[in-house]
Amino acid sequence: MVEKAVCLISGGLDSCVTSLIAKKQGYEIYAISFNYGQLHKKELDCSNKIAQTVGVEDRIIIDVDFQKFGIFSLLNTSSDSIQDHDLKDIGREIPLTYVPARNTVFLSLALAYAESIDADAIFIGANAVDYSGYPDCRPEYIQAYQKMADLGTKKGVEGRSIKIEAPLLHLTKSEIIKTGLKLDAPLADTWSCYRGGELACGRCDSCVLRLKGFKDVGVKDPLRYERYPDWYTS
Amino acid sequence: MVEKAVCLISGGLDSCVTSLIAKKQGYEIYAISFNYGQLHKKELDCSNKIAQTVGVEDRIIIDVDFQKFGIFSLLNTSSDSIQDHDLKDIGREIPLTYVPARNTVFLSLALAYAESIDADAIFIGANAVDYSGYPDCRPEYIQAYQKMADLGTKKGVEGRSIKIEAPLLHLTKSEIIKTGLKLDAPLADTWSCYRGGELACGRCDSCVLRLKGFKDVGVKDPLRYERYPDWYTS
Repeated sequence: MVEKAVCLISGGLDSCVTSLIAKKQGYEIYAISFNYGQLHKKELDCSNKIAQTVGVEDRIIIDVDFQKFGIFSLLNTSSDSIQDHDLKDIGREIPLTYVPARNTVFLSLALAYAESIDADAIFIGANAVDYSGYPDCRPEYIQAYQKMADLGTKKGVEGRSIKIEAPLLHLTKSEIIKTGLKLDAPLADTWSCYRGGELACGRCDSCVLRLKGFKDVGVKDPLRYERYPDWYTS
Repeated sequence: MVEKAVCLISGGLDSCVTSLIAKKQGYEIYAISFNYGQLHKKELDCSNKIAQTVGVEDRIIIDVDFQKFGIFSLLNTSSDSIQDHDLKDIGREIPLTYVPARNTVFLSLALAYAESIDADAIFIGANAVDYSGYPDCRPEYIQAYQKMADLGTKKGVEGRSIKIEAPLLHLTKSEIIKTGLKLDAPLADTWSCYRGGELACGRCDSCVLRLKGFKDVGVKDPLRYERYPDWYTS
C-alpha cells in the first residue's frame, strides 16, 4: 500500500524541494498550506502551482488568524517594516520577521490533518543551516516535536508514529537548490521574498539567502528581482 | 510586575476551575477559546460567562477549521453520532469523540498567543485521571509539550520558559468539583455535554463523568439535564 505524507507547501523554495523529495520517496502527497495574513501572499499563489507540478492527491488551505495575537512584521500591511539585510547579519539573532510559534502551529495543524487521513509522515522544509535565527527550525526542536506528537496522538499511542521529516534540515541553501535542480523543481514558481511586491525585493534576508544560494551553485535564479545585490551580479 | 497567563477557556467545568486557579495564583488572565465546529457550541456561550466571572484582561476566539481534515463525531451536525456511555466503559479505549491532535493544536495557538503578549504561563484543564482515553491529556504528553515549546520559541531560547500548567492533571472529577466550589466557580455556567441539545443529555461520557463527580462530592450539579442516570438519582 502506498504511504501517505502530508507536505507543508508554503510556496517557498524549501517546501517545494521538500515535497518533491517526499514524492520521490514514493509517498502520496497531501498538501497543506496556510493563509495567516502573510505580507507575501504571492507564496500562496506559488503553492498552487507547486502543488500542481508535484502532483498531490489533495490539498487544503487553513486560515490561521495570527493577527489576533498581535502585530509582527511579516503580517503588517506595509512592507516598510521588513528590514533589509546584509549577508553578514544573517543568523546572528532572531529576526523581526519571526512569528511566534509559527512552525509549532503549522506542524500541529499538519499533525491533525495527518492523523485524520491516516498519513505516515509529515514533511516540512525547515532548515537549520541558513535558518536565519528562527528557534523552530533547529534539529533539537524537530526531535522534541516528534516526541510530543508520538505521545499526543492516537496513532502514536498505538505505536504507528507519524514521522516528522525535515530532509533539508542540515543542507545549505546551495545544496537545497542543487537538490531542487536534480528533481526538476519548478524553482521559477517559488517565492521567497518577505515583501509583497510585484517582483522579489532582493534585499530582505530571505531574498539575500536565496540569491547567495544560487550564486554559490553558479546558476542564475529564474525568479525576477527588483534589485540585485552587488555581490550577486559581480 | 504582575505575570500574565493565557488560559484555555472552553466553557467546560475543567477549564473554568483551571482559570480560577490561575487567577488565585495572582496571574493576569488572557483567555483563548476555540470555535472548531464543535457540536456543543453552548460551550462557547459558557466560555463568555466564565471569562466575565473570572475577570480577564483580554479574550480572543480563534477559528480552527477541523472539518477540513475530515469528519469526527464531536464535529458532526447530528448528535446521534455521540455514543451513550456507561460508567464502566469510560477510560477503556480512545473514544470516538477524540479529535486528532486537538490539544496539540489548541496549545500551539495558545503558545503563539502567549509569546505574542509576553505571557509567562499557559493554563490548560487537561486531566489524566478521568481522561476518558484521550492521549493528549496525559502527564507525559504535557511534559513533552513543555520541552518542545521551550525549544521552539524565542522566549524559551532566551531562557524565559512559558510554563505549561495543567493543575487538574492528577485530580479526580470530584476533586476538581470540590476545588471549583472552594473558588466559587460559576459551575452552573459550565457546559460539559458533547451533544448540542437545549439541556445536557446526561448520557454521553462527558455528562456521565461530570454527574459521577458531583455524586461523589455529595452536591447536586446545578446544571439541568434531559435525563439523569439511575445511579445519580438513587
